Amino acid sequence: MLDAVIIAIGSELLTPSKTDTNSLYLTDQLNTLGVEVRKKVIVGDDRGMLSAEIREALEQVAIVILTGGLGPTEDDVTRDAVAAALERPLIWRQDICDGIEERFRTRGRAMAEINKRQAYIIEGATVLANPTGTAPGLWIESGHNLIVLLPGPPSEMKPTFEREVLPRLQARVPEVVIRTRFYRVTGMTESDLDTLISPAYKDYTNPATTVLASAGDIQVHLRARCETADEAERLLAAVGDPIEKLLGDRIYSNNGDALEDVIGRLLRPRQETVAVAESLTGGQLGQRLTSVAGASDYFLGGLLTYSDRVKTALLGVDPEVLKRYTAVSAEVAEQMAIGARDRTGATYGISTTGEAGPVSATGAPVGTIYLGYATPAATGAIRLVMPGDRNRVRGFTVNAALDLLRRHILRLE
Amino acid sequence: MLDAVIIAIGSELLTPSKTDTNSLYLTDQLNTLGVEVRKKVIVGDDRGMLSAEIREALEQVAIVILTGGLGPTEDDVTRDAVAAALERPLIWRQDICDGIEERFRTRGRAMAEINKRQAYIIEGATVLANPTGTAPGLWIESGHNLIVLLPGPPSEMKPTFEREVLPRLQARVPEVVIRTRFYRVTGMTESDLDTLISPAYKDYTNPATTVLASAGDIQVHLRARCETADEAERLLAAVGDPIEKLLGDRIYSNNGDALEDVIGRLLRPRQETVAVAESLTGGQLGQRLTSVAGASDYFLGGLLTYSDRVKTALLGVDPEVLKRYTAVSAEVAEQMAIGARDRTGATYGISTTGEAGPVSATGAPVGTIYLGYATPAATGAIRLVMPGDRNRVRGFTVNAALDLLRRHILRLE
Repeated sequence: MLDAVIIAIGSELLTPSKTDTNSLYLTDQLNTLGVEVRKKVIVGDDRGMLSAEIREALEQVAIVILTGGLGPTEDDVTRDAVAAALERPLIWRQDICDGIEERFRTRGRAMAEINKRQAYIIEGATVLANPTGTAPGLWIESGHNLIVLLPGPPSEMKPTFEREVLPRLQARVPEVVIRTRFYRVTGMTESDLDTLISPAYKDYTNPATTVLASAGDIQVHLRARCETADEAERLLAAVGDPIEKLLGDRIYSNNGDALEDVIGRLLRPRQETVAVAESLTGGQLGQRLTSVAGASDYFLGGLLTYSDRVKTALLGVDPEVLKRYTAVSAEVAEQMAIGARDRTGATYGISTTGEAGPVSATGAPVGTIYLGYATPAATGAIRLVMPGDRNRVRGFTVNAALDLLRRHILRLE
Repeated sequence: MLDAVIIAIGSELLTPSKTDTNSLYLTDQLNTLGVEVRKKVIVGDDRGMLSAEIREALEQVAIVILTGGLGPTEDDVTRDAVAAALERPLIWRQDICDGIEERFRTRGRAMAEINKRQAYIIEGATVLANPTGTAPGLWIESGHNLIVLLPGPPSEMKPTFEREVLPRLQARVPEVVIRTRFYRVTGMTESDLDTLISPAYKDYTNPATTVLASAGDIQVHLRARCETADEAERLLAAVGDPIEKLLGDRIYSNNGDALEDVIGRLLRPRQETVAVAESLTGGQLGQRLTSVAGASDYFLGGLLTYSDRVKTALLGVDPEVLKRYTAVSAEVAEQMAIGARDRTGATYGISTTGEAGPVSATGAPVGTIYLGYATPAATGAIRLVMPGDRNRVRGFTVNAALDLLRRHILRLE
């Protein structure tokens, strides 16, 4: 089996607050191809140390992937360090310089002189186009080794990897059949989910099962590696089918799509629309719904109503109801959802209100949440209690609100 | 100055879902002592590879800290690998074995035979008691090197470090004074910023200067390490004062606070308030403003208006203006800001409209953004062109809108 070392470059990655997340993405991609990651290294902007790491890695594994340090400043040492380790010169490429200059021009700006550094490549390297930034990646074959240089920002690294590296790697890596299942689940805690499904997977190492959770959104990955597709599918079914049965409609996606993508795909063919009214989430629910390209087909709008007065002014919430039940109540959540639906003409109105903390404004305990809904069939509200700090409470609430919308569209429960 | 390499051991740390968090804690502790971390490595349970890493690190730095791989199973290779790298034998310690056995006994369980492996130590090592687990740590001095072995679980690593390692390190490390400055800047690109300020810092290694950027938000860190506080402050001023002068009011924070925190601290004492009208950002501007605890003191609300019809219904944007200039125009941005201000009674109304992509709905190029403002003094709009994909355009836009608000509150420009 082929193996790899991933090296992340950047002094900022050696500070107490930064972690290298690129290597997680790359490990996932490499494992899917059947390539094992044997070491991960983080070094600062230190040419000599980086060169030493590259030389060592080239002796240990077949593939060395480097991220970061391709920018235009003196701190960006990756090109130089790889050139030194491979004992190859750097070569000026006018076409790359022209491309960078053009990129600046289309944005109405002049290219700074230092950006020219990004137009040097290592002799013999194939240039990997960076669709979202100025620093191109490089693909270098040297003896039995492959060295890949990728930009550091994840928003540049991922598209460069997917478009330029993945197809080339696939052509190089020996055939293994890999089949996966990928469930996304909401509406339960990670430990409840694991207690429920672990009997179904714990005796199997193939497929490998991984459970990942963040703020009310849980991902279950199954990955089978076999010599034949039939065998892989058989093993996946042996573990995956019982898991699907146990989780039922708590699975909102089985292709990796996020909840907001699933909702878009439900609303669009139905020609239905949604509007939101947000208190404690302050815009995060709208932001999630509109993070999907083309969301304007079904997202009409939203009202962020942080104060009682604005809840009345923008959503028509009855001041008497606010006074009697406080803003953190089922009654107000319901009126907010009705207000959002009425004022925009949307098919569905969804609202959030609650106490995100750190202190309670209404007397309700921090973490108390009400989600309101207004649909062609009914109006109402549900109450939930969320764990964690302000950020987590808001994150949980948004996932719960999106799931409530999904359940109403699908007429579940 | 003393420097260190941190090596984390464990094959589970090389999977796509696991990240090494011990090294963040250790980096923070070491930096506080004035010890610089020059490299972080993660290796699997691979004796040969680990020995090679240790040998290399011993040549590069003074201090090598290892976490993990001290358990009782065959997979736990750290003791063996360090012994091999230092060419020292492992020695049986009956007292450690008795301690582990005692630990099991007090929990009403018998010690498994394999736990005896944990009673071997490297010749010449000092045993570091592990208050919360069975695997003791080890402290080894070898020539000018110090090697520290710590258990992998954070709940064992941290107390072992604090009780056993920290006091010993403090006694070894020369007294150093550390002083820092931390600027946050918006309204320019990283390369423009670096072109502007690098002449001010590039000839200094002390203070060390780091520049970090994400979607329109740039951080500049300066860290000076000296024998006296006076000397550290003098060096910081020598580099920091010219940088402050060059960046001027583009610096929005010099204590690490985010833009939304700065805005909260500006609005609260002025008893002023803000409301937002968002199109392409879909709630993200509201979300950022309300991520600050206590934002209800000054954030009144917002209107998410994704369609032309809803811009008119919720914000009173003139349908004729929408038709004539399209939704991506200075005229509509201004009317949106006025609408947000009027409908909520806020001091400031801020709006976002533009083309986030991937396709343009109005014909304006993707990345074209208008930010509207309505203040007690004036109304208007500014035009910006943002790089990157949908996500980045939205992120840049939110930072630019927050900065526009900051500038109006402070009456800058």
